[in-house]
Amino acid sequence: MKVGIVGLGKMGYNLSLNVMNKHEVVAFDVDASNVEKLSAEGGTGVHSLAELSETLESPRVVWLMVPAGPITEKVLSELKGLLTAGDIVIDGGNSNYKDSIRRGAELKEQGIHFLDVGTSGGTEGARNGVCTMIGGDKEAFDSVEELFRDISVENGYLYAGEIGSGHFLKMVHNGVEYGMMQAIAEGFEVLEKSSFEFDYEKVARVWNNGSVIRSWLMELTEHAFSKDARLDGIKGIMQSSGEGKWTVETALDLQAATPVIAMSLMMRYRSLDEDTFSGKVVAALRNEFGGHSVVKK
Amino acid sequence: MKVGIVGLGKMGYNLSLNVMNKHEVVAFDVDASNVEKLSAEGGTGVHSLAELSETLESPRVVWLMVPAGPITEKVLSELKGLLTAGDIVIDGGNSNYKDSIRRGAELKEQGIHFLDVGTSGGTEGARNGVCTMIGGDKEAFDSVEELFRDISVENGYLYAGEIGSGHFLKMVHNGVEYGMMQAIAEGFEVLEKSSFEFDYEKVARVWNNGSVIRSWLMELTEHAFSKDARLDGIKGIMQSSGEGKWTVETALDLQAATPVIAMSLMMRYRSLDEDTFSGKVVAALRNEFGGHSVVKK
Repeated sequence: MKVGIVGLGKMGYNLSLNVMNKHEVVAFDVDASNVEKLSAEGGTGVHSLAELSETLESPRVVWLMVPAGPITEKVLSELKGLLTAGDIVIDGGNSNYKDSIRRGAELKEQGIHFLDVGTSGGTEGARNGVCTMIGGDKEAFDSVEELFRDISVENGYLYAGEIGSGHFLKMVHNGVEYGMMQAIAEGFEVLEKSSFEFDYEKVARVWNNGSVIRSWLMELTEHAFSKDARLDGIKGIMQSSGEGKWTVETALDLQAATPVIAMSLMMRYRSLDEDTFSGKVVAALRNEFGGHSVVKK
Repeated sequence: MKVGIVGLGKMGYNLSLNVMNKHEVVAFDVDASNVEKLSAEGGTGVHSLAELSETLESPRVVWLMVPAGPITEKVLSELKGLLTAGDIVIDGGNSNYKDSIRRGAELKEQGIHFLDVGTSGGTEGARNGVCTMIGGDKEAFDSVEELFRDISVENGYLYAGEIGSGHFLKMVHNGVEYGMMQAIAEGFEVLEKSSFEFDYEKVARVWNNGSVIRSWLMELTEHAFSKDARLDGIKGIMQSSGEGKWTVETALDLQAATPVIAMSLMMRYRSLDEDTFSGKVVAALRNEFGGHSVVKK
């Protein structure tokens, strides 16, 4: 199969190398140096979406691995003018499933198939065997199933159903990830505040071997502690890239009680602030009603 | 090594078979049929703690695998009158680490060593390779390290430090387990309330292959859905056996912020009630101030 790939960032570049194990890749990135890098590995580099479209044969398969949001929107709108009926566009980024449903409908008007694909496993997975959750027309999926089988780990791809279901699954996957990470982190918080002197790398290692909480995330925990025994080198600021928020928003819309995922997200937000206004309010109120002392700035 | 084992329940029985791969087992259980069952497998069954003590040679090694709390307390107090200086008592149950610290000190007065051992991996782990977290005197540990190596999976045992640290680690392990389980469960709650029609066994399977949240718990999730596709056969009542509560109590004592583990515990408690008094209070208040309708009994 000849596969067009748009976006050669960390994920897209590694995914391209993965695809190239069994297929031909025609790749475009706004950064020409990324295109050159992939060409040196044996891919066909192109310098515009138009050239990408010309280089691929109908029915074209174009895999997007660009940031979710405006950039994905822009690339798709440009592609709409270049692709033709029967082509398949795969969005492998972290798009919001509602956007994917809308985009799928828009592309369908031109007879272009759209698959929304949640991709998990990090850059290492993208390179050596990814996990993919796929939504969209079943026939479109069937025609490229071979591609998903070839780039995924064994049993690592799932046709999840109608359009939107792939990104929906990936969104919820990330929500679960937030909760699991926060649970692991809180466990180490208790260890750190205790009077015992634990070796966290060794703790994570023993928890990875035979225990109930053994997991890839715990393996990453072990790896992190192996590099920095008490994580002295970093601050506990927890960024997030949107999918946890979407999971909570979706849970609210569905009236699904997900307090742990929601709390994990709130703890990320809390970590962004050195001090909080809510903290000032509580301190002020304790002072108001009980004369409790406040810490002055 | 000759190892005395007290308690042949699900965990103790399987652990005994595991120990018997490389060592001799002398076993006691209050239920004589359990003792017979183990004798049939090649263990030496005895019918009292006194007989257990007589059958073992000094320095004795006695592994307790009995329910935490009063039963462990009772067995230990009886053993104190039977064992002699230099013997080693191992508590492999889910005892509270504070009890273990006290018991260790009490046994030490008689020169008896005490190891508090957190054991994870379920009955399958107990049988084929367990995960153990060990606290107590380093010399006592050293003298039986061979036993832990033989019954644990590779890298699956850890000498965690002074007395209490083994059960402390196991307690926190279980707290993390509560949070991870609740996070996974909430993810499936969102899927279930969505308009997509997911096959949960397949979802768990794809999440187990290459994704960030792959874990033993997700494998168990896959297995559960393989037996009952929508878990129609069971109610969502979540029991707990104490270690999550201890983790939260310890976090409170240490002023460690662990909202996700605490919330996981609260959600278990919530699941025990068909209806809640807090729900009635909120419904009544909405009626009081806004005339909002309430659901009558």
